Amino acid sequence: MLDEDSQDAAHRPAGAAPPMAHEDRAALHRVVNGRRDVRRGFLPDPIPRELLRRVLGAAHAAPSVGFMQPWRFVLLGKGDARDALIGSFESANEAARKAYGDADRRDHYGRLKLSALEEAPLVLVVACDHSTGRGHGLGRQTWPEAARDSTVAAVQNLMLAARAEGLGTGWVSILDKDDVRRAAGLPDDVEPIAVLCVGFVERFEAKPDLERAGWESRASLEDLVHVDRFGGPSPFASDDA
Amino acid sequence: MLDEDSQDAAHRPAGAAPPMAHEDRAALHRVVNGRRDVRRGFLPDPIPRELLRRVLGAAHAAPSVGFMQPWRFVLLGKGDARDALIGSFESANEAARKAYGDADRRDHYGRLKLSALEEAPLVLVVACDHSTGRGHGLGRQTWPEAARDSTVAAVQNLMLAARAEGLGTGWVSILDKDDVRRAAGLPDDVEPIAVLCVGFVERFEAKPDLERAGWESRASLEDLVHVDRFGGPSPFASDDA
Repeated sequence: MLDEDSQDAAHRPAGAAPPMAHEDRAALHRVVNGRRDVRRGFLPDPIPRELLRRVLGAAHAAPSVGFMQPWRFVLLGKGDARDALIGSFESANEAARKAYGDADRRDHYGRLKLSALEEAPLVLVVACDHSTGRGHGLGRQTWPEAARDSTVAAVQNLMLAARAEGLGTGWVSILDKDDVRRAAGLPDDVEPIAVLCVGFVERFEAKPDLERAGWESRASLEDLVHVDRFGGPSPFASDDA
Repeated sequence: MLDEDSQDAAHRPAGAAPPMAHEDRAALHRVVNGRRDVRRGFLPDPIPRELLRRVLGAAHAAPSVGFMQPWRFVLLGKGDARDALIGSFESANEAARKAYGDADRRDHYGRLKLSALEEAPLVLVVACDHSTGRGHGLGRQTWPEAARDSTVAAVQNLMLAARAEGLGTGWVSILDKDDVRRAAGLPDDVEPIAVLCVGFVERFEAKPDLERAGWESRASLEDLVHVDRFGGPSPFASDDA
């Protein structure tokens, strides 16, 4: 399955479809590695409509089970719905803080900035429409989460395109899901998947905020990959890193 | 929240971090739109180890709740584990086919090729380790699916990087999840998220297989975006498309 001897990542068998151009490959890795979850430094300026369309167009190009395309996008400016989300965040955030038994961890949590719901000019609620007939149920009998997973893939495309286009995104999960459902007016069979703060930002940091704040460190990729079974050997010796 | 009048997607407010270079933005959109779910035309050749490392490195750069990095990767070549997955697919696929009440739809389903588990040189089982202490639970009290969603984001990064690098990926969801768990040796608290066929391929098609086969058509983005609440107006008039 792996060519263990080949140190030449560019080696390709005869008859294989070519990779994208070297510059395109490098660009993809730059975007993937340059994407950040942004919670501070949002500018209040509105987003050009055509720019948002490009970003949502990338989301709409995500893979989906059965070509179901279950992703739906609700745009919230400032107003009552946004205020409800801010209130939901504040309650959930305080409850989460109090739940840490360790005082240092609790204090550390309390100093983190985990939402830009107050500042971002746009909040995008991304939802999964389980009621759509599109896809004719393909793949969802054995794997019912596949519809929501397709929606998450769309969110990832969206965040990458936003980064490339110079828009920050910040995914907020410290929210009561029923509050999100009410704020965005989602029917029962439309599931909230992600709440994203979106806007121009002052900067993109080189490292994740939670890494910079010392909350958590970057794992070593070598430790996360196993041959043949979970817990099996890594295909990458750590001295190759 | 939107600059409705600006047709100039390149307009940026003073003080905003710049977008990536024009060429990088174009490359990102090319990769996003060029990614395909591949089920036919896999070549048997092994994958250079360093190429796989680059692709998994993109997965490892995904966002994760609490910087938890819960993604785990199990590499399966050919052998007993693979054979078990092939058997699982065949049973699930036949059950899914029989479940279609409409005879035309059932016949159509039966003609689709929905797995490359037999041909692909590598099968990657991507899993979410719910047991890790990384992330210290941040964000998962209110949104327990956030850990698996982080893993799906990693899968999407992986598929995009693979496309850029000239590797095909095919996500198979017509499998019994317990069979996947057994084949990859996943402990109880490690959840299977995606089974991907990976390898060099003869070609990347311009359109999704299920669109080409007439199983489902591409939805219009305009219909999937709503201002203020689900079902609200689209920000994009369809004549702008």
